[in-house]
Amino acid sequence: MMMQMQTSIRDVLEADAKRIDQALDRLLPGAGEEPVSIHRAMRHSVFAGGKRLRPALCMEAARMIAGDPSARTEERRLEGIEDLGSAIEMLHTYSLIHDDLPALDNDDLRRGKPTCHVAYGEAIAILAGDALQTQAYEVLARMRCSAAQTVEIVRTIAQATGTVGGMIGGQVMDLEGETQKPTAKMVEAIHRAKTGALIRASLVSGGIYAGGLTEDVTRLHEFGSKAGLAFQIVDDVLDVTQSSEQLGKTAGKDVASDKATWPAVYGIEQSRKDAQRLIAEAFSQLDQYGDRADGLKMLAKYLVERSH
Amino acid sequence: MMMQMQTSIRDVLEADAKRIDQALDRLLPGAGEEPVSIHRAMRHSVFAGGKRLRPALCMEAARMIAGDPSARTEERRLEGIEDLGSAIEMLHTYSLIHDDLPALDNDDLRRGKPTCHVAYGEAIAILAGDALQTQAYEVLARMRCSAAQTVEIVRTIAQATGTVGGMIGGQVMDLEGETQKPTAKMVEAIHRAKTGALIRASLVSGGIYAGGLTEDVTRLHEFGSKAGLAFQIVDDVLDVTQSSEQLGKTAGKDVASDKATWPAVYGIEQSRKDAQRLIAEAFSQLDQYGDRADGLKMLAKYLVERSH
Repeated sequence: MMMQMQTSIRDVLEADAKRIDQALDRLLPGAGEEPVSIHRAMRHSVFAGGKRLRPALCMEAARMIAGDPSARTEERRLEGIEDLGSAIEMLHTYSLIHDDLPALDNDDLRRGKPTCHVAYGEAIAILAGDALQTQAYEVLARMRCSAAQTVEIVRTIAQATGTVGGMIGGQVMDLEGETQKPTAKMVEAIHRAKTGALIRASLVSGGIYAGGLTEDVTRLHEFGSKAGLAFQIVDDVLDVTQSSEQLGKTAGKDVASDKATWPAVYGIEQSRKDAQRLIAEAFSQLDQYGDRADGLKMLAKYLVERSH
Repeated sequence: MMMQMQTSIRDVLEADAKRIDQALDRLLPGAGEEPVSIHRAMRHSVFAGGKRLRPALCMEAARMIAGDPSARTEERRLEGIEDLGSAIEMLHTYSLIHDDLPALDNDDLRRGKPTCHVAYGEAIAILAGDALQTQAYEVLARMRCSAAQTVEIVRTIAQATGTVGGMIGGQVMDLEGETQKPTAKMVEAIHRAKTGALIRASLVSGGIYAGGLTEDVTRLHEFGSKAGLAFQIVDDVLDVTQSSEQLGKTAGKDVASDKATWPAVYGIEQSRKDAQRLIAEAFSQLDQYGDRADGLKMLAKYLVERSH
C-alpha cells in the first residue's frame, strides 16, 4: 500500500517536473539569443537536474485549494500555474549559482555537474544569477491570474527571498556562522530563512494563485513553516548518510566544514525523529481540507522519507 | 535666463533627491537589523552620494502626465511615487555593486568612496546586490497605485533590467566587448541596454504610475530611448574631460581600458553634438504636452549640459 502510494506520488512529481521543464524552456531566452553566453549559463544551471520540488509543492497546494468549494471564486483556475512554479525555480536556481561562487561556498560541483562559474566564469555566473532573479519577476508579472493575485504573489515571494527572515538573510547567517560552533537556535534560524522561507512562499503563492482565502493562506503558511524545516533536516541527514555519488556533490562537506546543520547539533537519530514530528505537526494544519489534502500530504511524506 | 532655469531645476532635483533619500531610509531594513552586515552594506552603497537622477526622471514624467487632463483618471495621484523612485534607485545601486566586483570591473572607488566589496567583502557585496534587487520588487509590490498599474510597472522594470536589450544584457555585451576594438554599432547597443533601458523604464513607469494612457507610455518610451542615450554619451565625455577628483573615480579609465565609449568611436566634439541632437529629437516626442513638458525638458537639458 505504502509502495503504491509512493509510486503514484512519484508519477505526479515526474509529471509536474516535466511540465515545469517545458515552461522553463519556453520562459527563458533561447540559448542562441544574444548575448548567448549569459543565456547558456542561465540554462546550464536551470537544467542541471533539479527535481523541481518547490514548483511541485506550489502546484499541490494550488490543487488542494482549488478543490475546496469554500474557496471557489472566478479566478480559481490553475491554468498557467506552471509559470508561477517556473519563476520560483528560477529564484531557487539563482540562489544556488551565487551560493556556489568562490567568494561564498566555493563549490565546483552541483548535482554532479560543474557549477555555473566553473563552466562560464565568475563574471557571467554572477550576472546569470542576477538575470534569473530578474526573469522570475518578469514571469510573475505576466501570469494569467488577476492583477491583485499577482501583486500578492510578488510581495510574498520577494519577502521570502529577502534579508529579513528570508533566503538571503539565511545565506548571510550561514556564512557568518561558519566561524563559530553551531547552536540549536542558530541552525533553526538559518534553516527557516535560507531554505524554509522559499518553500513556504511556494505553498502560499500556489494557494493565492488558486484563489485561496486569507485562512487558506495562513494554513499554508503554517504548514510550509513546519514542512520546510523538516525537508531541510532531511537534506542535512542525507548529506551525512549518503555517498558523494548518490548526492552528486561532495558528501559530508557540511559536517567537515562545521556548517550549521541539524545532525551537527542533535545527531542523526534525533534529526530523523524531528523531521517526522514536524511533518505530523504540519499535517495537522491541513485537517480542515479532509482528503483534498492527500496529494500535498503524500508529497511531503515522500520528501521526508527520502532519508530512510 | 538660462542661469535662472538651471538654478530652478537644480532646486527641483535637490528636493526630489531629498524626498527619495527619506523614502530609501524608510524602505530599507535598518542598519541595526539582523543580519546587520548585509543591511549596512546595502545602505553603504545606496547612500554613497548618488544623485537620484532616475527617480527624478520618473517623478518629472509622472508630473507631466498627471498635469495632462486627457489622462485624468481616479488612480492619477502622485502620492507615494517616491516609493517607485526608490525601487528604481535600489535596482540601479544593485547593478553598480555587482559591476564593481573583482570578477567584473574590479573598481575600488565609486563616487570617491570604497566600493561595497572593498568595505564589506566580496560575499556580502554579492548578496547585498541580490538583496537590493529583491527589496526593489517588494517595494514595487507595496506601492499605492492600483494592482493593474503595479503589474505593468513590475513588467516594465523587469524587462528593462533583464538580458534581452536590458541592463544585464548590456553589462554582458560590455564585458565581452573589452577584448575587441569598439565599433559604433556595438557602443550604441551597449549604451541602449546597459544604462538606457532603466532610464527609459524610469520615465515609462512614472507615466504609468500617474495614470498615463497607452499613447503617453509610447511617447515616454521614445523620449527615454533618445534621452537615455544622450545622458550616457555625456557620461562618456565627462569621463574623458574631467579630472578624477571631479568624478570621484579614476578618470580616463574607460578610454585606457579600450572600453566601448562614444568618444572612443566618434571623438569628443562629435559626441557632444550627438548628445545635443538626441535631446532635441527626444523633446519633439513631448510636443503634444505643451508647457506641461517644461519640467521634464529642463531636467533633461540640465543633464546633457553637464558636459560643458
